[in-house]
Amino acid sequence: MAVSLAGVFPPIPTPFDAAGELALDKLAANLAFWNTTGVAGYVVLGSNGEFPFLSEAEKLAVLETVGRHIAPGKLCIAGTGCESARHTIALTRRAAELGAHAALVVTPNYYKPKMDAAAFTAFYQAVADASPIPIAIYTMPAYTGIDISVDAVARLSQHPNIIGMKDSSGSMPKYGDMLRQARPGFQVLAGSASFLFAALCLGASGGVCALANIAPAQTVELYKLTKAGKLAEARALQYRLMAPNAAVTSGYGIAGLKYACELTGLYGGPVRLPLLPLGEHEQARLRATLAEAGLLP
Amino acid sequence: MAVSLAGVFPPIPTPFDAAGELALDKLAANLAFWNTTGVAGYVVLGSNGEFPFLSEAEKLAVLETVGRHIAPGKLCIAGTGCESARHTIALTRRAAELGAHAALVVTPNYYKPKMDAAAFTAFYQAVADASPIPIAIYTMPAYTGIDISVDAVARLSQHPNIIGMKDSSGSMPKYGDMLRQARPGFQVLAGSASFLFAALCLGASGGVCALANIAPAQTVELYKLTKAGKLAEARALQYRLMAPNAAVTSGYGIAGLKYACELTGLYGGPVRLPLLPLGEHEQARLRATLAEAGLLP
Amino acid sequence: MAVSLAGVFPPIPTPFDAAGELALDKLAANLAFWNTTGVAGYVVLGSNGEFPFLSEAEKLAVLETVGRHIAPGKLCIAGTGCESARHTIALTRRAAELGAHAALVVTPNYYKPKMDAAAFTAFYQAVADASPIPIAIYTMPAYTGIDISVDAVARLSQHPNIIGMKDSSGSMPKYGDMLRQARPGFQVLAGSASFLFAALCLGASGGVCALANIAPAQTVELYKLTKAGKLAEARALQYRLMAPNAAVTSGYGIAGLKYACELTGLYGGPVRLPLLPLGEHEQARLRATLAEAGLLP
Amino acid sequence: MAVSLAGVFPPIPTPFDAAGELALDKLAANLAFWNTTGVAGYVVLGSNGEFPFLSEAEKLAVLETVGRHIAPGKLCIAGTGCESARHTIALTRRAAELGAHAALVVTPNYYKPKMDAAAFTAFYQAVADASPIPIAIYTMPAYTGIDISVDAVARLSQHPNIIGMKDSSGSMPKYGDMLRQARPGFQVLAGSASFLFAALCLGASGGVCALANIAPAQTVELYKLTKAGKLAEARALQYRLMAPNAAVTSGYGIAGLKYACELTGLYGGPVRLPLLPLGEHEQARLRATLAEAGLLP
Repeated sequence: MAVSLAGVFPPIPTPFDAAGELALDKLAANLAFWNTTGVAGYVVLGSNGEFPFLSEAEKLAVLETVGRHIAPGKLCIAGTGCESARHTIALTRRAAELGAHAALVVTPNYYKPKMDAAAFTAFYQAVADASPIPIAIYTMPAYTGIDISVDAVARLSQHPNIIGMKDSSGSMPKYGDMLRQARPGFQVLAGSASFLFAALCLGASGGVCALANIAPAQTVELYKLTKAGKLAEARALQYRLMAPNAAVTSGYGIAGLKYACELTGLYGGPVRLPLLPLGEHEQARLRATLAEAGLLP
Repeated sequence: MAVSLAGVFPPIPTPFDAAGELALDKLAANLAFWNTTGVAGYVVLGSNGEFPFLSEAEKLAVLETVGRHIAPGKLCIAGTGCESARHTIALTRRAAELGAHAALVVTPNYYKPKMDAAAFTAFYQAVADASPIPIAIYTMPAYTGIDISVDAVARLSQHPNIIGMKDSSGSMPKYGDMLRQARPGFQVLAGSASFLFAALCLGASGGVCALANIAPAQTVELYKLTKAGKLAEARALQYRLMAPNAAVTSGYGIAGLKYACELTGLYGGPVRLPLLPLGEHEQARLRATLAEAGLLP
Repeated sequence: MAVSLAGVFPPIPTPFDAAGELALDKLAANLAFWNTTGVAGYVVLGSNGEFPFLSEAEKLAVLETVGRHIAPGKLCIAGTGCESARHTIALTRRAAELGAHAALVVTPNYYKPKMDAAAFTAFYQAVADASPIPIAIYTMPAYTGIDISVDAVARLSQHPNIIGMKDSSGSMPKYGDMLRQARPGFQVLAGSASFLFAALCLGASGGVCALANIAPAQTVELYKLTKAGKLAEARALQYRLMAPNAAVTSGYGIAGLKYACELTGLYGGPVRLPLLPLGEHEQARLRATLAEAGLLP
Repeated sequence: MAVSLAGVFPPIPTPFDAAGELALDKLAANLAFWNTTGVAGYVVLGSNGEFPFLSEAEKLAVLETVGRHIAPGKLCIAGTGCESARHTIALTRRAAELGAHAALVVTPNYYKPKMDAAAFTAFYQAVADASPIPIAIYTMPAYTGIDISVDAVARLSQHPNIIGMKDSSGSMPKYGDMLRQARPGFQVLAGSASFLFAALCLGASGGVCALANIAPAQTVELYKLTKAGKLAEARALQYRLMAPNAAVTSGYGIAGLKYACELTGLYGGPVRLPLLPLGEHEQARLRATLAEAGLLP
């Protein structure tokens, strides 16, 4: 049976203690809360999980912890993309053994000028062929400095083990083109709550939303209102979520997301260098934004 | 009374004869057809009108022709943006005398590194202060290589003579932010049929769509279905219009739009150098795309 | 006989009076000073001349004034690039009648996605065929958002009426490729004093340097030292000129250049909107930079 | 005593066998040849070494092999940059134990929007503080999609354990600004043979040149001619090396470099996916380019 990517998936942050070491107990505690919410599952080791800063052993420890603490019925989507196909395949296999239901594979991006449709096609086919779990493509131009073309996505959507796509570009024409050209049933996930409403209108199956870490109820409500066709209410909620969403994504980044976790009763903790902690002024502004949106306890 | 930007507005091409001179009779003939359709009005001298290639005298001749042939009740929106405020103001005043109901003013863009929020704010305020007709801001990053920030738009939306914005960026988060932050009633126009459906869902008032030149009925239908909340039908129509829309915009550009005009019974004619005419192979592919979408007679 | 582009050419600013009107008497006065210096001639109506803000009548008035006041033996290079070939040709012909020795034609840039090698080749060939004076290609990516490929330049360099290129990209590999691939004798001008030394080492014929407006002696000295093979002295002078050059170009733009003119005894005057005048703080920093470099009287 | 970065350093490719495994014997064989040439040392695990595709164990094996086979007097510069400071520090320490004389640390780049001067400063200071060997900053905008500002470099150049910079931007103004603003003695390495001559003229200490893998004699000759002030000869040689250099860098990438190794008597072997091998047509064109430049045996 196919894996469903319908619903809202928070890309969960990876907790570190004051010494910068993995804090797996804090991860378990956060999951205990998220498990009580309406989210459809978790993206683990995504961009918000600081995956580029984790050793392979740390990645496996995080996946193992999620596997033990995730609520039944919720999906574990593991971020397993590495620059090379061989590392991506190896990590995806280990993730499957640790209980991940699907893998989210970011576009390789270091050798940008060579990352054309041919390279992406060969890469994702090799990964999908070798993976015991379904694959979703992940494009995040703001971080990778590169995008995958709609034509390549449409071709890759024909592979039986490639079930979907997380797209953080926010481009409306691209969403329309993808959803039209990919095979029917190909599942597109909005990469941010900032365009969840519009993407769902266009036919997306759900969203991977950093905001859902700290406002799961509101983000799930936005999903449900839109799916129910309650356009005016959904639009109004989308507007209300713009400012807090920006604060924990483009505005203050992962350090902001982790600080917002602290403010909402979750464990946040430090980010790893070269990311920097928020200054006091930034903390105050983030607090004010969340308060204004009614997201503080 | 405020000018309404609700509905679909084709940005009409400027007809030239075989010698490259203005063909005003052809413009009148095209208008005679468009007047019979459900479009809400016309954008004259927009990017699709090859405005950077027209002398001031030619611009005035085009506006005068539109003023004489436009159907009652349809809006004439004149593209009057120039690099300097003084030329923009002068042209906007002349356009108003010739019957334009509103002016669409593209962001100045040559001195990109200096075109920050302060420069745009001073520019648009000066133009809006001096203009006898309402102003809409026009941003077209693919052509200008620059964008205006949401903050600047929100501030400018407070000016009583700035009634709206045509945004061709296609960015869903930006649309959400603009519609949330601008003063209530500020009217945002989608800059392309490729994201008309999503933009309308988000709260846009209408669209400036090149596709509406050659498929006015279908584009207006997309507008009406969305406004009526018929999401599934609207989405399906949006998908069907993606390919023909791309063909007459990003794909084959203005030369493609003009060739498509010929194919659909309108006058198209040549583009001006440095734009190049379509080759035979491109013509055949454009024909096939329009035929497949059911847009050929 | 071929026109020589050897030496240093200031791209002169266009003086406006307090009301924003052309101040041709001030232009004549500035020329009277520049005529006494070692510059090889002038670029008139270039980017630093605010050409996008001038009407055609104003452009002709400026050229006419330069034609009457330029010292014998100095070259008048007119910026005649417009978005369309037909306007560019018309303006180039008028410039030639007014005494311009060569025309500098910026790449058309509004319709960026279509400005490929084929478009540029057709455009420059048409202009060069029709022009009574030699043509130099002008690329300024920071303003135009676009560049012309080395292959296209190499091909165009074969045209007998295309004698050179002003390149403001500052890219060392591109300079190497151009100078290697263009026909022997094709003259490349560095678009800024910030890389005049390196470009001359690589084989450039000279430079179009905003800095030469306010520091003609020093800029010409840099040219001469490099041509004489005095590398260590030239390099040291290049370093010394970096900061003042940045201040009147990328740093404070044309408003900075005009203010620096005031500080050095020339007429500067206002810029046209949407360019903004310097604030007091910016004025003070620019003054300090010029003072530190020994460029103030 | 300070480590000297004067001279030419090939960024050596990492050999893989037909199964894609490390081929350390081939690495040793290649080194045996390069040791006989005039290069000043090697950059190991650089971009041309496919470092993003290597596991940590593989990186250490490569460094160990180089340590055992490098000729006395030649410098081993290890590419030790990772996305996080903690991994970078750990790898740099291991590299030092294995005999590396200096470390080349690429700018972290995944979280681009947060990689500002503050982040880079904190990152490089932490790495330099902890490293037992000197550090050189490495910026490669074509791959990282990001650059480090001249101001940040100038500030970091004050750190006693940061001795230099490899800059692959090729920007002449940036080289001038860096060499002027950094502390005296700060050593800048040109990141490509395509601008080695110009960079040396401007004051660079040497170059990290992919071309030096397959044409060490010619690249070293270019270095020597320029340092000796033989400008005309150096310039002519620079021109001759443009085409073969482009072929093994921007043109055909690492697959091209490895194929060129095969053609010149070294071991090349396959690249790792998502990089793709050259097709037959590309192989033929690369061969022709090298033959024309006199670089084939």
